[in-house]
Amino acid sequence: MKTNTGRFFEDYKLGEVIPHAVPRTLSGGERAAYTSLYPTRFALTSSDEFARVSGLPAAPLDELIAFHTVFGKTVPDISLNAVANLGYAEGRWHLPVYPEDTLRSESEVIGLKQNSNGKSGVVWVRTRGLNQRDELVMDYVRWVMVRKGNLDADAPETVIPELAKTVSADDLVVPAGLDFTNYDFTLAGEAHRWGEYEVGEVIDHVDGVTVEEAEHMMATRLWQNTAKVHFDATNRADGKRLIYGGHVISMARALSFNGLANAQMIVALNGGAHANPCFSGDTIRAWTEVLDKAETSAPGVGAIRLRLVATKGQAGDLRGEDGKYLPEVLLDLDYWALMPL
Amino acid sequence: MKTNTGRFFEDYKLGEVIPHAVPRTLSGGERAAYTSLYPTRFALTSSDEFARVSGLPAAPLDELIAFHTVFGKTVPDISLNAVANLGYAEGRWHLPVYPEDTLRSESEVIGLKQNSNGKSGVVWVRTRGLNQRDELVMDYVRWVMVRKGNLDADAPETVIPELAKTVSADDLVVPAGLDFTNYDFTLAGEAHRWGEYEVGEVIDHVDGVTVEEAEHMMATRLWQNTAKVHFDATNRADGKRLIYGGHVISMARALSFNGLANAQMIVALNGGAHANPCFSGDTIRAWTEVLDKAETSAPGVGAIRLRLVATKGQAGDLRGEDGKYLPEVLLDLDYWALMPL
Amino acid sequence: MKTNTGRFFEDYKLGEVIPHAVPRTLSGGERAAYTSLYPTRFALTSSDEFARVSGLPAAPLDELIAFHTVFGKTVPDISLNAVANLGYAEGRWHLPVYPEDTLRSESEVIGLKQNSNGKSGVVWVRTRGLNQRDELVMDYVRWVMVRKGNLDADAPETVIPELAKTVSADDLVVPAGLDFTNYDFTLAGEAHRWGEYEVGEVIDHVDGVTVEEAEHMMATRLWQNTAKVHFDATNRADGKRLIYGGHVISMARALSFNGLANAQMIVALNGGAHANPCFSGDTIRAWTEVLDKAETSAPGVGAIRLRLVATKGQAGDLRGEDGKYLPEVLLDLDYWALMPL
Repeated sequence: MKTNTGRFFEDYKLGEVIPHAVPRTLSGGERAAYTSLYPTRFALTSSDEFARVSGLPAAPLDELIAFHTVFGKTVPDISLNAVANLGYAEGRWHLPVYPEDTLRSESEVIGLKQNSNGKSGVVWVRTRGLNQRDELVMDYVRWVMVRKGNLDADAPETVIPELAKTVSADDLVVPAGLDFTNYDFTLAGEAHRWGEYEVGEVIDHVDGVTVEEAEHMMATRLWQNTAKVHFDATNRADGKRLIYGGHVISMARALSFNGLANAQMIVALNGGAHANPCFSGDTIRAWTEVLDKAETSAPGVGAIRLRLVATKGQAGDLRGEDGKYLPEVLLDLDYWALMPL
Repeated sequence: MKTNTGRFFEDYKLGEVIPHAVPRTLSGGERAAYTSLYPTRFALTSSDEFARVSGLPAAPLDELIAFHTVFGKTVPDISLNAVANLGYAEGRWHLPVYPEDTLRSESEVIGLKQNSNGKSGVVWVRTRGLNQRDELVMDYVRWVMVRKGNLDADAPETVIPELAKTVSADDLVVPAGLDFTNYDFTLAGEAHRWGEYEVGEVIDHVDGVTVEEAEHMMATRLWQNTAKVHFDATNRADGKRLIYGGHVISMARALSFNGLANAQMIVALNGGAHANPCFSGDTIRAWTEVLDKAETSAPGVGAIRLRLVATKGQAGDLRGEDGKYLPEVLLDLDYWALMPL
Repeated sequence: MKTNTGRFFEDYKLGEVIPHAVPRTLSGGERAAYTSLYPTRFALTSSDEFARVSGLPAAPLDELIAFHTVFGKTVPDISLNAVANLGYAEGRWHLPVYPEDTLRSESEVIGLKQNSNGKSGVVWVRTRGLNQRDELVMDYVRWVMVRKGNLDADAPETVIPELAKTVSADDLVVPAGLDFTNYDFTLAGEAHRWGEYEVGEVIDHVDGVTVEEAEHMMATRLWQNTAKVHFDATNRADGKRLIYGGHVISMARALSFNGLANAQMIVALNGGAHANPCFSGDTIRAWTEVLDKAETSAPGVGAIRLRLVATKGQAGDLRGEDGKYLPEVLLDLDYWALMPL
């Protein structure tokens, strides 16, 4: 067999580091494609001039371009036989990514737990994205449920990693040189600075975007993520293709510009759940709750912790009386962003 | 309220200059995306070599990329509460835009007239697109009908700007250095030079392109134009999304290559009407009428004034017996282009 | 008539060289667009770093980007009035294409044969793609059946060119500097080297991709190929648009990564048939048969000759009992690729 059948639960060993194929050089082409796929308008990633006034050498690529690129490379080794993508934790962006950078990624197995049914298990990995200078660009923990290939394989010793419920504000990495003291709120699109957001505040981002098959397939391929459920209409009786969860993340983040135009850079991913699947024809909306705020050591730069919720109907409650996500909830994401003071 | 509710009619003051968010750095990525969305083949914007032989440092981005980028930035401030996009006038391209240029835009309110019903009014703005050196890249006048937010607000003094019916040939800006004396008609795709076109001549551009939801949404987002009518299928009972008028402009201009391959650069927009809305599934066709011709001071460069009409059925009459646009007419655009003598 | 009506059979003269419009400068934008349209992951064209370790100055653009660009330019002169695209032969890639290169193409008429019905004929052309330094980038022979415009035109002398059934391994052009002695199989995605493939071996590439109207139209326009059958839904009663055969080639080649991740560069096109038309909604799958193997003079570099078959159902037989392609077969392509020893 020359084709990749993916790994099964029994193939993962605690402590093992899996280097992922295929390195990828990014350019202004990926930025243009991203802009055509999502209604993103954050000034720092849109304009070289705005970025220079903010102390960076040029406009970095959107932080989610880095995430999707790094994540996409893990699919053939981590989630080809995954039953479910269970969660994210301890995600941090360590360095901006610029056009002409080349990214690769690797994952360390940090936890294993076979399910009681003996047919599958949970694998925890810490994935690292590295650039052409082997510098750490981002890392995050992700855990997935994976099928066993050989049901007779021994169960590994159960190791469940201790994961921070949220990245501590002290651990946020602010890009070297970032300085918002000359920040132009008019060019950025909104007047609201860090001080004007209150913990507990909820912002409805108003707009909705109806998604199409061609769009989510183009988006998913853009990250060289070739998980077959996203592309093959013969997998389901209704001919629909399951939309890559990251497509919903990027759509919701872009929609959040309306009300959070100054939440310029994502610096940490505290957690996230793909609450329900998304399909072509769904209209994605989003709302945000402010969860926390913190200062940083960079001039003029504050940090804000946000819960970003994407729904396929109107924004509203998250969970039903049974404590489960309501069927219209697509995404519940917890992240830190940087904002001008 | 942290989200942008847009301006209402009473929010515009005569003489006010509104700077628009968000500046945008363009690259070869936007050119590739544009080429994938429209059947454009004009040699000057397609080939660095062709542009150098024509006296330019490299292939500029399509003039309509500049237009859409500048226009897209005005949407949150000018047309979020617009009832109708009424017209364009006095549009001129002042400088070519090249990859790595950063564009921003601003609009000056030059006219106001409250409608007799007291519920809306017409706003005239002159929009300017500027590059990273604050040089004027293009400007145009646009007028829109905007709802009043507060029906009790006083009507402003009526000021209707005097607008030229067409940009005078003397006012056309030919890019510095442009020289068509070494123009290669074979590489450009057609043999017809400026002298071969006659005022009154009509050219049917033959080909039709059927448009899809995914395409027009990607095109519209590419310019960071996030007017919700283009994206949200729940806005209409039939689930269709109104296609951005600029999508029809670019499609028709690209189709006009067949017969006007040498109309290389758009230098002025004399006027334009989006005669009827366009929807997914429509097949766009186009025809052109030669309206005028003029010489320029640049070597080998003539100017030609063209009426470009886009239809969703066969090319034919523009207006019915009642003087109104026929329902199959999508666009009636009047522009000046540069052409080799 | 200013529009291009295309050439008819009687318009081709043996020995004539037809220069095609419009030259095209490529960039990272075309690479990003290609990646969003096809699930391609070959490391050499994905990563500048991987390419440098392999002795090239940077990641070249996918060989099929060069092919589609060169081919697209021939459409207005060769296939606008073509009834059928009959075959390819003697295709070779002579030089890698890099971002910022400008390509143009020309075709030499090397064969003519009027059909016995007197209404059409077969035209053989050798098409050459050239870069901005007039260096040969690729060439291939293609023959098409073209309608006569004037049925009374004399039949030309019949000349059928002698074409090699396959490009000889001795004639393959390996890019200058290419060296696979430091090849990283982990980064490339699979462990299988040249020595592990056997002539006669068949590889099922497993995955399927369902294609959409928006995608194939964007792909086809990306190469400035404006053949109307691909875009105009009013051409057929069912409203479907015939998908450009090259879209199927690129999809199948990208799918073949799964099992042939190390078949890094296409260097020759021995032959190919578009066995049946492809339409939106079809799910494309692919399999490959190893036809031949050869050594090259470049360090660590072997050549492998592959038959790539694309189907719209499950992979299976090619031909029925009548010797004709089965209806689910879309493509039967014969090519040489380079692979690490």
